[in-house]
Amino acid sequence: MEALLRQSRSMCPFLSKTSPATLRSLSTTAAGHHVSPGAGSMSNLQVLARRCPIMGKALAVQSARSGSSALAGAFGGVRAYHSRVNRAKLHTSTPKEAQAIDIERTNQVPFPHATKTPSGAVHAAHAGVPPVPKSAKFDYEDFYKTELDKKHKDKSYRYFNNINRLAKDFPRAHLASKDEKVTVWCSNDYLGMGRNPHVLKSMHETLDTYGAGAGGTRNISGHNQHAVALEASIAKLHAKEAALVFTSCYVANDATLATLGSKLPNCVILSDSLNHASMIQGIRHSGAKKIVFEHNDLADLEAKLASIPPEFPKIIAFESVYSMCGSIGPIEEICDLAEKYGAVTFLDEVHAVGMYGPHGAGVAEHLDYEAHLAGKPKGTVMDRVDIITGTLGKAYGCVGGYIAGSAKFVDTIRSLAPGFIFTTTLPPATMAGAKTAIEYQSAYQGDRRLQQLHTRAVKESLSARDIPVMSNPSHIIPVLVGNAEVAKKASDLLLEDWGIYVQAINYPTVPVGQERLRITPTPGHVREYRDHLIEAVDAVWTQLGIKRTSEWAADGGFIGVGEDGKKVESPLWTNEQLGIDTVFQKMKTGQDSYTILESILEKEHHAAVAA
Amino acid sequence: MEALLRQSRSMCPFLSKTSPATLRSLSTTAAGHHVSPGAGSMSNLQVLARRCPIMGKALAVQSARSGSSALAGAFGGVRAYHSRVNRAKLHTSTPKEAQAIDIERTNQVPFPHATKTPSGAVHAAHAGVPPVPKSAKFDYEDFYKTELDKKHKDKSYRYFNNINRLAKDFPRAHLASKDEKVTVWCSNDYLGMGRNPHVLKSMHETLDTYGAGAGGTRNISGHNQHAVALEASIAKLHAKEAALVFTSCYVANDATLATLGSKLPNCVILSDSLNHASMIQGIRHSGAKKIVFEHNDLADLEAKLASIPPEFPKIIAFESVYSMCGSIGPIEEICDLAEKYGAVTFLDEVHAVGMYGPHGAGVAEHLDYEAHLAGKPKGTVMDRVDIITGTLGKAYGCVGGYIAGSAKFVDTIRSLAPGFIFTTTLPPATMAGAKTAIEYQSAYQGDRRLQQLHTRAVKESLSARDIPVMSNPSHIIPVLVGNAEVAKKASDLLLEDWGIYVQAINYPTVPVGQERLRITPTPGHVREYRDHLIEAVDAVWTQLGIKRTSEWAADGGFIGVGEDGKKVESPLWTNEQLGIDTVFQKMKTGQDSYTILESILEKEHHAAVAA
Repeated sequence: MEALLRQSRSMCPFLSKTSPATLRSLSTTAAGHHVSPGAGSMSNLQVLARRCPIMGKALAVQSARSGSSALAGAFGGVRAYHSRVNRAKLHTSTPKEAQAIDIERTNQVPFPHATKTPSGAVHAAHAGVPPVPKSAKFDYEDFYKTELDKKHKDKSYRYFNNINRLAKDFPRAHLASKDEKVTVWCSNDYLGMGRNPHVLKSMHETLDTYGAGAGGTRNISGHNQHAVALEASIAKLHAKEAALVFTSCYVANDATLATLGSKLPNCVILSDSLNHASMIQGIRHSGAKKIVFEHNDLADLEAKLASIPPEFPKIIAFESVYSMCGSIGPIEEICDLAEKYGAVTFLDEVHAVGMYGPHGAGVAEHLDYEAHLAGKPKGTVMDRVDIITGTLGKAYGCVGGYIAGSAKFVDTIRSLAPGFIFTTTLPPATMAGAKTAIEYQSAYQGDRRLQQLHTRAVKESLSARDIPVMSNPSHIIPVLVGNAEVAKKASDLLLEDWGIYVQAINYPTVPVGQERLRITPTPGHVREYRDHLIEAVDAVWTQLGIKRTSEWAADGGFIGVGEDGKKVESPLWTNEQLGIDTVFQKMKTGQDSYTILESILEKEHHAAVAA
Repeated sequence: MEALLRQSRSMCPFLSKTSPATLRSLSTTAAGHHVSPGAGSMSNLQVLARRCPIMGKALAVQSARSGSSALAGAFGGVRAYHSRVNRAKLHTSTPKEAQAIDIERTNQVPFPHATKTPSGAVHAAHAGVPPVPKSAKFDYEDFYKTELDKKHKDKSYRYFNNINRLAKDFPRAHLASKDEKVTVWCSNDYLGMGRNPHVLKSMHETLDTYGAGAGGTRNISGHNQHAVALEASIAKLHAKEAALVFTSCYVANDATLATLGSKLPNCVILSDSLNHASMIQGIRHSGAKKIVFEHNDLADLEAKLASIPPEFPKIIAFESVYSMCGSIGPIEEICDLAEKYGAVTFLDEVHAVGMYGPHGAGVAEHLDYEAHLAGKPKGTVMDRVDIITGTLGKAYGCVGGYIAGSAKFVDTIRSLAPGFIFTTTLPPATMAGAKTAIEYQSAYQGDRRLQQLHTRAVKESLSARDIPVMSNPSHIIPVLVGNAEVAKKASDLLLEDWGIYVQAINYPTVPVGQERLRITPTPGHVREYRDHLIEAVDAVWTQLGIKRTSEWAADGGFIGVGEDGKKVESPLWTNEQLGIDTVFQKMKTGQDSYTILESILEKEHHAAVAA
């Protein structure tokens, strides 16, 4: 029975949504749930099977025909089971005032297998309200404690660090006490836009004029010129017809995939195996068929696309920059496959917007750098992607998320997604700040170029010290540790002994055994900070005896560390695109040219600001 | 077959999650999906049934035994169905780098019933990558268009009004053009805290010191003193051990119910029929058994509680103030039932926080007004409620949501809920502003009392003109229209001809046939605005010939309008609690004592501010 269950989980929509623990408890015969004399005992799963319209019918036919069969053997004596259940009163009246969207109203009596009361009567909705024996009640606090104990035991319990990033002393922060200063090396405010004076000015002014909050949902008093202008800026950034802003990109991904997947008839969603939790949740919530393809594996994706009937709608959900390993999705090739098989492309550019492309529209824009620089988006990869999602909370330094795509697509999500409809609009000041950030980064390339240079410098310096940087072509610097406890210890030592904040990334954000430190340089991480970081990481690696690249290599390599013979991808930003070939070459030969580089970019920055 | 499906939908977890349209298409024999000669044609539902581990086994036994039976009659010739499917290659390898939380990985070949290619070969994952006929592809833009056409046709398509609320001219706003001023009568910034100078000061200072955004999730650089302090303020407000802040209360409700419902073994969630979309989504996402009880119907709730085995965990999810009709939940009585049947109470106080109780903690606090005023929460109704959820985006004037409860409960949600874990923290300035708003409203009663008085005045004036106010004991003023098109027309006329903004509330926010205007007075809606509103509504009612209370009464009444003999609930805020018996009495006899009242409250306000 257990083996059958395991094997079949992925096929049955019910079983696939049920956790292994629940299934186990369901498939175990429930003691004390004898319903009537002669009915025998049965597992809860059998009870559920009996209620399934398909299985229920099968069991009825089965029991009518024979008292003993392979089926009866599998499910136990269910012959005369619960004839009384069918007579239970079915409430079918609809009250005058009902929540219209609540389509799952359930009025049937759900628990025919209720426990007996001391008097022997069976509980049911029509059986009145007998006293409940106190001892039988579920212990919620004990349940919470057990869940937390599990987290402590497998070292996935999370201790949050109190980090207060200082706008005027970027990338510095103070801990709980204002006197304890640290350097932040793991913020997703990649470009320092959270302290950008233009963004702050825009927010201050909007706060004064329009107040702290929007005061309602988009439909009820929460729609305003800030939402209109921000969505126009986003649509323009991605060269799409329209855009829609959500409270976060978690909500944008969740709501959009859930809505599309549930509304498109027979929809199948193909999901990269490293997709973010928000997409995984959205797909789950859609109830649509989900097919996971191997991370960035085009052959696997194509085989799976080909297995789906051509007329079925399909969504390929993937990311441009995968945030925890820094790999980059093959966007153009996925667009080719999508066109071949009639699929919609859903591209999450959360970690790429602001960071790639001549206007900061993301990796899709970066792939046609010159065309976009010339203002010619037509026919580019970005133009071919159907749906782009992004965030206002990382490189743009604020908070919120969005989708961009065709006018009809965006209007459909606007009209149907509960996660958009039933929530308060972002504050006007937040939307104004985000718009300023997008436009600033669209006009100025200095921040993302400097960020890329700092990334290269840190990657190279760490690699030179045999520190296991996981190879990738992006701005993310994942450093492999491979153990939850050690990763936390390394993070704690960096904070306590070195005043450097790099969070340990443990399960469930990454799989067990792949725990890492994730370093994210910004334009503010000038040489002084970088040198300090390298020295600190090297010392902590020695202190804790953490495996170095050469040791991983000796063991055959692991997820981008010490994997001999594996082709190393070049950085997405080329030397040419960074526009500083000469300076970069000098820097690589050991000359201290960061100062020159930074002064060049600083000038460029001031020029842009003045313009 | 259709009848069986309908009847059984609520029982099978798969069928209950599938829309009627999808079920219909699944139960129709799919033309052209013949798989092999002799297999016959079958519906997609039969294909799914075959894959179900329970039904699949039953069908196998069935077909082994007999070629023709009641079951075979129901499901068509499935005898030799798809023996080839079982031989299809099953990909079971797990890639090295997998998203750990992705437990739903599906590697099986999912579409044995794929359409034939022109050559007659069947598509399958192992069958290579044949060319796809272009004509067979799904038309996404056409799908979007069809969805939007449906919305236009049933008048549920939403046109957003561009409303820019002016902090310095509350409750006034401007439309798209700065010169077009209107009075906002439907904001959920109930107390005008969005323009409160203390809130704004706190936000300005935090913006300058800590920047625009948090820069990360709570676990990765986004945890800070503002989150710590805000959560402490919320826990204190509700006299709970702990609290947790989310990006919105939509997310708080969704994430908390989804997490609890999926983690608690055999969990059953009892949900009030008027619950907000966020709770409905959370329950759906949990996969837990859901039982809807009639709105505020204790007998129905008890019958349903009694039908569930006592040892099963149960959550009663309900609201204090139901936002679209203004009814108030029987919190104390629900706590009694929860204790009797061993259930957890999950109370959404979204529309009540800031508005009720001596400290603005909500209706639960209001029910023990004197005890809380004396600082003695022990044993009160609020103390007995297990989980309270609330918003920072309505009466507190900012944005965001939260849960409050026992330390272990909050820590469990903090540790397990993807909607909390994988999203960027609210901006420091937002959290600082919200904390200031909570503390201000905790110390000062003037705003909510004045709001209540304005509510009473508007309700009485509208009723005096025979305008159909839906009776309720809260601060919400729903005015029944009963038709989507007319409701929108009324809203448009108020805006265009009178400069008054009251949004029409149509499906899906309220059921079809219950469309309404929803008026929400604030402390800023002084006499001048109120008189103007009454005059305007009366005129629009006449102009459009909208049914008045007396006409509804003649038809027997409807949802709180003209329902003869139905007991009218007194306002939750008593005259005594409002502390202005004398003034209020004078006002009712026609004397213009608002000025006196408002000047009293104004003085009280200044005293509080100075303190």
